[in-house]
Amino acid sequence: MEHESPRTVRIALGSRSYDILVGPGLIAGAGREIARRLPGARAAIVTDETVAGLHLPALLASLGAAGLEATPIVLPAGERTKSFEQLVALVDRLLELRLERGDAVIALGGGVIGDLAGFAAGIVKRGMRFVQVPTTLLAQVDSSVGGKTGINSPRGKNLVGVFHQPDLVIADTSVLDTLAPREFAAGYAEMVKYGLIDRPDFFAWLEENRPAIFAGGAQRAEAVAQCCRAKAVVVEEDEREDGRRALLNLGHTFGHALEAGVAYDPARLVHGEGVAIGMALAHRFSARLGLCPPEDAARAAAHLEAAGLPTRIGQIPGAGFTCEALMGKIAQDKKVKRGRLTFILTRGIGQSFVSDDVDPAKVEAFLKDEIDAR
Amino acid sequence: MEHESPRTVRIALGSRSYDILVGPGLIAGAGREIARRLPGARAAIVTDETVAGLHLPALLASLGAAGLEATPIVLPAGERTKSFEQLVALVDRLLELRLERGDAVIALGGGVIGDLAGFAAGIVKRGMRFVQVPTTLLAQVDSSVGGKTGINSPRGKNLVGVFHQPDLVIADTSVLDTLAPREFAAGYAEMVKYGLIDRPDFFAWLEENRPAIFAGGAQRAEAVAQCCRAKAVVVEEDEREDGRRALLNLGHTFGHALEAGVAYDPARLVHGEGVAIGMALAHRFSARLGLCPPEDAARAAAHLEAAGLPTRIGQIPGAGFTCEALMGKIAQDKKVKRGRLTFILTRGIGQSFVSDDVDPAKVEAFLKDEIDAR
Ligand SMILES: NC(=O)c1ccc[n+]([C@@H]2O[C@H](COP(=O)([O-])OP(=O)(O)OC[C@H]3O[C@@H](n4cnc5c(N)ncnc54)[C@H](O)[C@@H]3O)[C@@H](O)[C@H]2O)c1
Ligand SMILES: NC(=O)c1ccc[n+]([C@@H]2O[C@H](COP(=O)([O-])OP(=O)(O)OC[C@H]3O[C@@H](n4cnc5c(N)ncnc54)[C@H](O)[C@@H]3O)[C@@H](O)[C@H]2O)c1
Ligand SMILES: [Zn+2]
Ligand SMILES: [Zn+2]
Repeated sequence: MEHESPRTVRIALGSRSYDILVGPGLIAGAGREIARRLPGARAAIVTDETVAGLHLPALLASLGAAGLEATPIVLPAGERTKSFEQLVALVDRLLELRLERGDAVIALGGGVIGDLAGFAAGIVKRGMRFVQVPTTLLAQVDSSVGGKTGINSPRGKNLVGVFHQPDLVIADTSVLDTLAPREFAAGYAEMVKYGLIDRPDFFAWLEENRPAIFAGGAQRAEAVAQCCRAKAVVVEEDEREDGRRALLNLGHTFGHALEAGVAYDPARLVHGEGVAIGMALAHRFSARLGLCPPEDAARAAAHLEAAGLPTRIGQIPGAGFTCEALMGKIAQDKKVKRGRLTFILTRGIGQSFVSDDVDPAKVEAFLKDEIDAR
Repeated sequence: MEHESPRTVRIALGSRSYDILVGPGLIAGAGREIARRLPGARAAIVTDETVAGLHLPALLASLGAAGLEATPIVLPAGERTKSFEQLVALVDRLLELRLERGDAVIALGGGVIGDLAGFAAGIVKRGMRFVQVPTTLLAQVDSSVGGKTGINSPRGKNLVGVFHQPDLVIADTSVLDTLAPREFAAGYAEMVKYGLIDRPDFFAWLEENRPAIFAGGAQRAEAVAQCCRAKAVVVEEDEREDGRRALLNLGHTFGHALEAGVAYDPARLVHGEGVAIGMALAHRFSARLGLCPPEDAARAAAHLEAAGLPTRIGQIPGAGFTCEALMGKIAQDKKVKRGRLTFILTRGIGQSFVSDDVDPAKVEAFLKDEIDAR
């Protein structure tokens, strides 16, 4: 499963098709790749304070060498940046720079920067060109692929946004070397997700190659490219998330409820950790319903644990969760229809499916036992 | 050219296709038409204070009769409502109502309400269903067709928005009876525009039928339907405004400069009046360049004047315009490329074309004479 880098993953969406370039050290050639695809464009680089200190100089140098005029816009790091206030300020900056529809917004950062900058690019002049340079593992394997952009509202996460496909994604796997180990592991949970959804061979390959991926070898780039391809297949089938794309939410109904339960405090739980616990729960719940062999649920959890990820509600530091509170969050979730819950369940490793007919009482009983198991 | 109403104009955009229903008294059946297309949907009606007083009760009654649950959201009337502040507040109201992607935002009002509500519908949950019930002539023949939505920025008009096609447009030509005569005439300028762009027969038909259209006869519905069809053809060819759709800007480069010149004070100039002067200028400028017969320029102006519209810069009340100021606004306009201006010029009635090679010096000399002609 090893190739020479950079690997190119093509997202085939008709006139909105684009390439994802994956490999170590790609930022050095980013200017050339962007200039080739958007000749004559000017650019604004949107990034956060942490990433700016680490990787902005290299990107600026690369754009400069390619003759691309680019202005950096540096925002605070963290989920709170995905707000209407920051959106309005960013849009104003882009307009102040007099950028046109053919000019580019370049997002250099994690999912927060990608989601905010992509939304701004989607609405300035009703749609500017957009380039993603994802710098977290989560952003490389998940948020930068598929065109979902947006911000949070005081009423909930990701409630406002647009579908706006990028013109190019450059996933430089070397920049992940500066990522906090906890953030790397969180992104790894999303990697594991692709295996658990419908790629049992990829899951087995991850079991073998996890240490190399964490260490940064060629396997890391290979793994990122495999995940982009996996997500691409789903996005190509269902660009606007009306059906099959729901499978990508494996582990997320439980995960979101847990994140909300800690009031999105990243000191207690980051998104990927919530997803790791959520996927373990989805497998154990499926086992309890008699759908999934218990050995497969144990195998999924064991792999996540080996990667340093939590798999039990009781591992979340701080005050305990009540079953009522979690069920309330789950019911609030958008995946509820006429009193039955929509859940991603599984018949085993790599055999997930969407069920829109899950009995809330069974979820509640299951969660009660899981909380007590702490 | 007369039919029985309602007339249906189909906008063919693949999976985003929709109908425009045109005719007198259609609001009475609006609930049934919406419920038929969006079964089970809930709705929010976005409107302004003026329109709410005149036409909201009828729409609410019609929705109620069709069993459609709808909540009105009433905003201040006027162009200032197309702001980020109002957008954020509207989005919050829609989220507070817990509307889902399958639920509908119904815009009941002129272009201001349609543009703002359409933008909100385009970004809440990354795209809700959207129904336009345009209540100004301008909105019926122009802004409600084509899916352009958006708001103004302190840096300029319509700079932020999305393309978001409606699921249905209901143009009830009776509601125009309550419109201020000046607003009706302003919308009529956009009607004339379709004739001047590429429909000489329609222009001649308008010359015949103008009094009947103003009076509200069957000709009014016929004229609205013809204009929707004319815009539909252009939108179908060029949904995202990359090419041919530019023709719809006939009269608008001059018009926008004039609007900006009065600081968008509607007491001095409303949009359609700016367009009327702009179209007269575009024809006279084309005549001066030897492109258009002077008789055609005179004929275009005479028809606009007969409709009570201005056709000369000197007719705008208040302080005078300087040539420098107007040229500055024109150069700021987005239709500028490498020192040459992009303009819609014409070879005669119904023979407009896009020129991206207009010499600014010639425009300046022309405008100087036009201003002095006051
Ligand atoms: N659009 C989508 O399809 C999609 C999918 C999944 C998640 N998301 C969104 O993505 C966001 C989470 O993304 P994230 O986990 O990347 O968060 P993030 O962008 O906040 O990044 C996490 C932290 O890592 C720092 N960082 C980023 N790159 C770094 C690097 N190379 N070295 C050192 N530090 C670095 C950031 O400054 C930040 O503090 C959430 O808002 C979530 O809703 C979107
Ligand atoms: N989206 C597009 O493609 C597009 C195209 C052209 C114009 N526009 C936008 O449309 C806006 C102008 O639209 P407009 O002229 O309809 O303005 P508007 O919405 O402000 O309406 C004009 C006035 O008429 C009142 N009104 C509306 N319907 C009425 C009725 N039936 N009876 C009595 N009063 C009524 C309104 O309260 C308002 O005071 C501008 O913001 C312009 O940018 C958009
Ligand atoms: Zn996730
Ligand atoms: Zn106009």
